[in-house]
Amino acid sequence: MPSLDPRSDPVDLTAALVDIASVSGAEADLADAVEHALRTRAPHLEVVRDGDAVLARTALGRPSRVVLAGHLDTVPVNDNLPSHRTGSGEDEVLHGLGSVDMKGGDAVFLHLAATLTEPRHDVTFVFYDCEEVEADRNGLGRIERQRPDWLRGDLAVVGEPSNAVIEAGCQGTMRVELRTGGVRAHTARAWMGDNAVHALAEPLRRLTEYRPRTVEIDGLTYREGLQAVRVGGGVAGNVVPDEAVLAVNHRFAPDVSAERAEAHLREVFDGYELTVVDRSAGALPGLSSPAAAELVSAAGGRVAPKLGWTDVARFAALGMPAVNFGPGDPTLAHTRGERVATAEIRHVAEVLGSWLGA
Amino acid sequence: MPSLDPRSDPVDLTAALVDIASVSGAEADLADAVEHALRTRAPHLEVVRDGDAVLARTALGRPSRVVLAGHLDTVPVNDNLPSHRTGSGEDEVLHGLGSVDMKGGDAVFLHLAATLTEPRHDVTFVFYDCEEVEADRNGLGRIERQRPDWLRGDLAVVGEPSNAVIEAGCQGTMRVELRTGGVRAHTARAWMGDNAVHALAEPLRRLTEYRPRTVEIDGLTYREGLQAVRVGGGVAGNVVPDEAVLAVNHRFAPDVSAERAEAHLREVFDGYELTVVDRSAGALPGLSSPAAAELVSAAGGRVAPKLGWTDVARFAALGMPAVNFGPGDPTLAHTRGERVATAEIRHVAEVLGSWLGA
Repeated sequence: MPSLDPRSDPVDLTAALVDIASVSGAEADLADAVEHALRTRAPHLEVVRDGDAVLARTALGRPSRVVLAGHLDTVPVNDNLPSHRTGSGEDEVLHGLGSVDMKGGDAVFLHLAATLTEPRHDVTFVFYDCEEVEADRNGLGRIERQRPDWLRGDLAVVGEPSNAVIEAGCQGTMRVELRTGGVRAHTARAWMGDNAVHALAEPLRRLTEYRPRTVEIDGLTYREGLQAVRVGGGVAGNVVPDEAVLAVNHRFAPDVSAERAEAHLREVFDGYELTVVDRSAGALPGLSSPAAAELVSAAGGRVAPKLGWTDVARFAALGMPAVNFGPGDPTLAHTRGERVATAEIRHVAEVLGSWLGA
Repeated sequence: MPSLDPRSDPVDLTAALVDIASVSGAEADLADAVEHALRTRAPHLEVVRDGDAVLARTALGRPSRVVLAGHLDTVPVNDNLPSHRTGSGEDEVLHGLGSVDMKGGDAVFLHLAATLTEPRHDVTFVFYDCEEVEADRNGLGRIERQRPDWLRGDLAVVGEPSNAVIEAGCQGTMRVELRTGGVRAHTARAWMGDNAVHALAEPLRRLTEYRPRTVEIDGLTYREGLQAVRVGGGVAGNVVPDEAVLAVNHRFAPDVSAERAEAHLREVFDGYELTVVDRSAGALPGLSSPAAAELVSAAGGRVAPKLGWTDVARFAALGMPAVNFGPGDPTLAHTRGERVATAEIRHVAEVLGSWLGA
């Protein structure tokens, strides 16, 4: 088993985590190493292995508890392992699969787990599997169903890359398919048919004229969106098509429930057949909770809205405030050139350390 | 080799032709049988074998020559061989692959080849291969390149199914692809992108508002058409698409050249990138030629415009008037239930026989 020293420098620890490949579904080696590191180097924690997730927590009787959660898996290797570094000092960059998404966050959490023996809040650490694949394989979902007490707390911090800025809440996302029908005919006798592709002109017009909302919540600005993500239709080069489909992705601010967002889409596309393909509610920023306010303060007051959807929403659905805070530029995630400024890893470690430290 | 009696009743001969399978590219058996029948039972004709095409002609020194052309191949077998008959008398129906497209026409031509030893016009018979596949495999194209004298004449009759009504001229057809571009972005940050699918709203609006021409030529009414036949675009469920394509099929009356039709489409879709995928000119009806006028008269004066594109246009491109005249309902072509009223086969045989007979 590859060995990890969880008390080592968070940047070195990030590199060590990157160098243990852990593509979704094949996280066992990394989960073994994390479990062993916690059992041997963090004896003050209760440690549980759940499939390829590793859970650990303090039980100090503090009045509040925070959950630090990070997934261990990555997207497939793309000629970007093992890790290497370029630059030095403040300009040092760590390259490699998972350096952004999200072994930098994992490394900080693992380092805090081993070094913070007397945190200000009780802390639960959740290192989980299968975040990068279908939602129903997500390890956090399995833990929620089978060990819900391990996710309870007063605030959750998900270590997904956020450029080392606290991102609060997240927008909801919904995908719908709009289908138009028609009557098939030979194009030489087109008047005997009814063209389902032509029938997309009106829904596309509504899309182009749609003005998405910009919403302020807790001082954060969320920008909604309504975008076609796929269009398809056609039978043959000489046939009037009798079916076409337009797939649309709606991103909605967390002041709107998934139900209300769906009702809104049905209004926008009134008169058309709409099928909801998937639907995930957003999460309100929840910055008014005391633990969250302390964290924002430790981060120097900087906070931004989260526009994409992350597992933060799973905690929000449990009624917990949750924020996203991790090193790395999310636009580099899933790219071959994935890389992180090591200064961001150190910054996140310092903020969380000063927030949770004595 | 299966044997054919070209002097037998045209309906029996149609059934015999249907029962010799001749899917495109595998017409050799049928071409062998046709060649043998002509060499042995029509000694008054010059016969040439060209690949799997069979050519035959009189050389009587008549002042005019007509070309009767039919393809020997069919689309793939679809559980519709061998032939069988239902009904009787005027209601008799012959079922089977090729009964419509176009062994009824072939049978009439073969029967005339063997029985009309003293036709009023010199006659060239062209039984050719590979009409049902890519245009560059078409046997008529090969003959045009290699034996152009075999296609020359004052009128061509193509025996494609036309409900036993003379169809004159044919419309042109053109396929274009319109591409829209954009900028890819995550849908959570859609304002950083530019949606290529949304950009289809305007060309689709133009399509829905387009009013195709109706054109009168030689007393025939041609109805043009402009139809989307395919639409496609999309990267992933959470990505603003940066490319989309709309394929459009234009059917245009034979008073417009392919060049002018293309210029018209470029005007309709002004401002968009357009690629011509294929383009085939139509054919003017040419009913004013003496041979054509005689044929129309023999058919009792009934004539209709041809809206689809057929090999008639190949003859028109050679500067010859050409009509389509054959038994069978073209909408049954290429269907498993392909079938022809035998009365239509007899009607076509009678009309052509009285036109060409002494």
